[in-house]
Amino acid sequence: MTGLRVDASRLWDSLMDLATLGATAKGGVSRLALTDLDRQARDRVAGWLRGAGCTVEVDGVGNIFAIRPGRDAKAAVVLTGSHVDTQPSGGKFDGNYGVLAGLEVIRTLNASGVATEKPVGVAIWTNEEGSRFVPVMGGSGAFAGVFPVEKILAERDIEGVAFGDALVAIGYKGRVPVGGRPLDAYFEAHIEQGPILERETRTIGLVTGALGLRWYDCLWTGQDAHAGPTPMPARRDALRGAARLIEAVHALALRFSPDGRGTVGFLQVAPNSRNVIPGSVRMSVDLRHPDDAALAAMDAELHAAAGAIAAELGLACEVRQVASFASCRFDAGCVGLVRAAANAFGYPHREIVSGAGHDAIYVARVAPAAMIFIPCKDGISHNELESARPEHVEAGANVLLHAVLARAGRACAKR
Amino acid sequence: MTGLRVDASRLWDSLMDLATLGATAKGGVSRLALTDLDRQARDRVAGWLRGAGCTVEVDGVGNIFAIRPGRDAKAAVVLTGSHVDTQPSGGKFDGNYGVLAGLEVIRTLNASGVATEKPVGVAIWTNEEGSRFVPVMGGSGAFAGVFPVEKILAERDIEGVAFGDALVAIGYKGRVPVGGRPLDAYFEAHIEQGPILERETRTIGLVTGALGLRWYDCLWTGQDAHAGPTPMPARRDALRGAARLIEAVHALALRFSPDGRGTVGFLQVAPNSRNVIPGSVRMSVDLRHPDDAALAAMDAELHAAAGAIAAELGLACEVRQVASFASCRFDAGCVGLVRAAANAFGYPHREIVSGAGHDAIYVARVAPAAMIFIPCKDGISHNELESARPEHVEAGANVLLHAVLARAGRACAKR
Repeated sequence: MTGLRVDASRLWDSLMDLATLGATAKGGVSRLALTDLDRQARDRVAGWLRGAGCTVEVDGVGNIFAIRPGRDAKAAVVLTGSHVDTQPSGGKFDGNYGVLAGLEVIRTLNASGVATEKPVGVAIWTNEEGSRFVPVMGGSGAFAGVFPVEKILAERDIEGVAFGDALVAIGYKGRVPVGGRPLDAYFEAHIEQGPILERETRTIGLVTGALGLRWYDCLWTGQDAHAGPTPMPARRDALRGAARLIEAVHALALRFSPDGRGTVGFLQVAPNSRNVIPGSVRMSVDLRHPDDAALAAMDAELHAAAGAIAAELGLACEVRQVASFASCRFDAGCVGLVRAAANAFGYPHREIVSGAGHDAIYVARVAPAAMIFIPCKDGISHNELESARPEHVEAGANVLLHAVLARAGRACAKR
Repeated sequence: MTGLRVDASRLWDSLMDLATLGATAKGGVSRLALTDLDRQARDRVAGWLRGAGCTVEVDGVGNIFAIRPGRDAKAAVVLTGSHVDTQPSGGKFDGNYGVLAGLEVIRTLNASGVATEKPVGVAIWTNEEGSRFVPVMGGSGAFAGVFPVEKILAERDIEGVAFGDALVAIGYKGRVPVGGRPLDAYFEAHIEQGPILERETRTIGLVTGALGLRWYDCLWTGQDAHAGPTPMPARRDALRGAARLIEAVHALALRFSPDGRGTVGFLQVAPNSRNVIPGSVRMSVDLRHPDDAALAAMDAELHAAAGAIAAELGLACEVRQVASFASCRFDAGCVGLVRAAANAFGYPHREIVSGAGHDAIYVARVAPAAMIFIPCKDGISHNELESARPEHVEAGANVLLHAVLARAGRACAKR
């Protein structure tokens, strides 16, 4: 290792500073994509990046690219970054950490007078969370060619405001074309959003890929009936179907241990009255696995379970897939650089598969990519209580710095 | 039997006429208590009763009593009736049938020139449904001394309007004291609101009593977490607790067959997001049984099941009882008169226990009482699709007529 280290308190201060924009009473952040708070956050971070000598460009869906030039003006950029939008009740670290760790990499290179062969950049991807506009990871997805730009711009929030109009309103509809920018590599630092690193007291997660995902809407249909007069055997209780499927989803995910996931997060009962047997229940199912064949097997088991429960209880159940992501394997070379950096610092680490979606997963479709996870308190994220320890925040940024530097190459002479 | 029979088409026409007030597109009725539609229904039925020679009195909570005098001016009244308020998406028969069957009894006595020893009356009880104001069966409950009048008048609807103010606004705050009126007996005809009579092709249910009832709110608390990164064994999924309790409630009700009932009708998930493991679930439990000791045993099993599930899944579960009704046994003499009338007409019948609440259950606390059930289509009630067959509507009214007449006694001479 080169001996370069980030300035931990400068990085921490930038995180706490940015977290004042949209700060909530419980210590979280509420900063939805393309709101004025998002504009303020973009302005502030872009200002810091300009102050660190970067040129800042904005593309047609609002993705921001801050570039620190390399010695080789023609080389593709070694990019890092993440997002500054948050969930409605989000935390200080999700996304913001990846962006500000990137800023800290630039500032550390500047402070040490290190020039790189290739340019080094920091990206702020638009609307990663998908809370205000679908789809999630819309900015990085458009960059990677997953979504047409027109589709992204036409999406509307719950009040009918178009993404494109909101983007113009905050002044972030840029002139740079979306996508097509050659990347040498992409690294993204992020809190784990799960409990594994914390439980095993590992400082760094070497993220080797991401779980494939399928989302379903399930509609159970039975018969509303009065809770008093209707004998138990005469019932067609849609909520019993849902309850049985909740347990079946848990059991099937366990059969695909340790990486299978199965979750029912959303459920809505009709008529939802205390003395009426529910005639209809709508519920979501979320299945994830790092292996696409295993995920297909989980899909088959879900359909079989729903069918068997429906038949046994005299219900109808419609299972409709509403979204899917293929699993993702990050670039072995990039993961190797993350591993080497963690080893050089002596940080306890392990390989880990991301269960959540991240901008890196889309960027990985157009560039070699990897991610660096750090622990978060109790694995909690998408929550105002989201928290990370300063020493982990520092460690992740140090690993990012050295992975980026290994890829970008030191220029022979100091500038 | 005397040979007296109700006029089936007159009764049916009155039902269809009343059902125009608050008629819904799907053929139901939406006529919440103490709305202007309720006033119109009260005005119309009270007008019909006055037209049939009754004196009409209104008490301090809006209960209406229409009395046809008997030969013995001092005798207590033989009362029948029910309610004309409906659920928000209610039907044409629930409540309305009992009131208009009472009207038809009066009209039949008039048309046949039959005088009775004791007075015969028809009651329209206020706010049986409890949809706009709690408590359910508020008018009959106040009459029976279950609720203080001031409490009933002070209840507010969801918009903050007080019951007492709404009552004044529709002109039905009467001067007659609430309760204290001596009743010789009370009979109430009603649709079953369950499937038993229809399935067994019985025309008449001899209602021997009503299920005791306990209502609970259960709050499951686990930990919100991201659906992707959180391994299955690390989860504290509140919705799994709820799902297990839904099945436990069904199983425990089956153990108290055939009269035990257990229902989860209401369930609310937080944060209710497709990719977040639910940290909290609120759900209702409704337990019913005709035997209070059995109901107490069901209560104990519910608490034990919730505790065991919570312990196994690492959740907290708070089970709070929010309402209860003791079971009710109707007067054997009154039930006997209903049986005799059904036998006299040759109507297929069976004893049945009411699973639902009815005004008769409160009135039974201050007078000998019984109910007469008729089948309803598919057991459906509290629903715009609620339906009853004209021949059953007629049969129930014939039984009511003869039970009332048996109790009131024919005066020796025609008037």
